[in-house]
Amino acid sequence: MHYLFKNIAGCFVFDENYNLLDKALSDKGQSMVELENRIRKKFPDLKSIDKPTYKILSSLKNEDIKDILIEKNIQITKQALTDSVKKDTLIIQAVKNIDDMTKNSNMMCKRLREWYALHNPELENSIDTNEEFVNKIIENKNEKIKESIGADFSKEDLIPLIELANTINSLYEIKKNNIEYITKLMQNFCPNLLTITGALIGAKLLELAGSLKKLALFPSSTIQLLGAESALFRHLRFGKKPPKHGIILQHPIVSGAGRNEKGKAARNLANKISISARIDFFKGDEYIGYQLKEEIEKKFK
Amino acid sequence: MHYLFKNIAGCFVFDENYNLLDKALSDKGQSMVELENRIRKKFPDLKSIDKPTYKILSSLKNEDIKDILIEKNIQITKQALTDSVKKDTLIIQAVKNIDDMTKNSNMMCKRLREWYALHNPELENSIDTNEEFVNKIIENKNEKIKESIGADFSKEDLIPLIELANTINSLYEIKKNNIEYITKLMQNFCPNLLTITGALIGAKLLELAGSLKKLALFPSSTIQLLGAESALFRHLRFGKKPPKHGIILQHPIVSGAGRNEKGKAARNLANKISISARIDFFKGDEYIGYQLKEEIEKKFK
Repeated sequence: MHYLFKNIAGCFVFDENYNLLDKALSDKGQSMVELENRIRKKFPDLKSIDKPTYKILSSLKNEDIKDILIEKNIQITKQALTDSVKKDTLIIQAVKNIDDMTKNSNMMCKRLREWYALHNPELENSIDTNEEFVNKIIENKNEKIKESIGADFSKEDLIPLIELANTINSLYEIKKNNIEYITKLMQNFCPNLLTITGALIGAKLLELAGSLKKLALFPSSTIQLLGAESALFRHLRFGKKPPKHGIILQHPIVSGAGRNEKGKAARNLANKISISARIDFFKGDEYIGYQLKEEIEKKFK
Repeated sequence: MHYLFKNIAGCFVFDENYNLLDKALSDKGQSMVELENRIRKKFPDLKSIDKPTYKILSSLKNEDIKDILIEKNIQITKQALTDSVKKDTLIIQAVKNIDDMTKNSNMMCKRLREWYALHNPELENSIDTNEEFVNKIIENKNEKIKESIGADFSKEDLIPLIELANTINSLYEIKKNNIEYITKLMQNFCPNLLTITGALIGAKLLELAGSLKKLALFPSSTIQLLGAESALFRHLRFGKKPPKHGIILQHPIVSGAGRNEKGKAARNLANKISISARIDFFKGDEYIGYQLKEEIEKKFK
């Protein structure tokens, strides 16, 4: 009676007393099937063993087998690491970058406004949105009013301001491009989720969940509250009112719902999001996003 | 006997009982001297009054004088606001901007590294300085090693990273340009301070003090500790060791001094800084910066 034992290093044949009789090592990249066939030709009566005993393992202790084992293990780990980067990892990086860009550009706009107000406080004061203000500076149409209380700036004094405005503008560009990039990735990777949530909210949900897999496995009540963790814990610890919605509050279905409808809308939307994430993760190619979207839009119009 | 009363609205003549006899208003931009001469021709025996009484003030209540008073006051305030922006205000804005750029670029580099490491962790790990890493990404020489554990990125996946790297680079550019700008301003505005401290430390001292005037009026012991406020208050409140140096620790004279010499070097340097700031503020054109610098360098070589 002969026993067969397999691991990533190769195939090993033992006799009834668990002495190593023969082996076929996969040191040259041979497939496991190939090795097994070779061994089975030599030993037609091979049986698999269920519990490798101490003896078997000790037979595997010699150096050449150990090296192959270590090398193979590293290869497998490397492959697992490489494979762990999926499209959702990229989506998450991009949406985190969008957040960073928002924070950074706000900080830089604050400086730009403070600085420029020394020169032309009337103009600074008259423009509310940062985007518009930045564009005004880039155009550099120095429309200082006659009775301005601002100081005179020479051309050299204005240069750093224009440079700063240009850089803020490039942050805005990056944000736009990242949203496009996310949209493209989601079109292939999770088209149903994209249809229901749009690019930004979908990407944020992926970020908060950690991956599409995790998002698909969450109950929809968890999805409903993603992004409202601190409010939830305030509820659990101090008995405050429970939150009704997390990040999905930004979705037009929820934000557009009446005051008493918001919770209901959030519950329904989270439900559809959960379904779409599950289809995207488990079914691959199926697309029913449009249908799901119509259902919920009909309900909350 | 006639009394003369002047304010920004014009000249007013009162009799002994403080009744308004005549006035000359500066409503057409006439100078006060002009108005006073005109009045003095009419009333050669004019005396100034030291304490305007209620009666005088009440004579000024009628509408036309009030309007001129208000208008003149606004003009003076506007002029004061305009004049309040001096070169040190611009230096302070620029150095604050440099700080912002450092914070922002660090934050963006962190994101760039995390993102790029998914693709090429070996390269990310091998480059320590952010500047070098950013340049590597911009050059986009995709030197992925053969056995990399990183995931494969398509060209589209790399574009957002290159965009981000380019923007970080423009933040570095802004920093460089701002330092040049500060140097130019300081060459005219406070050449002595510039010689002693260099552009960055000098500008930070101005920022911490608030203006060149304030810096010039500080005792040198205060200058020595500018930027070490929290350590100073820890000393005063909790009896911890007093700090020996604030921002001037970054100066080569202090940072290069031996462990036991640092306090002495900081005290001497703060002394020279105080002298140079005073010369810059009170004497205008005098330049002895080089001489001061030589003195302290001789001492700590």
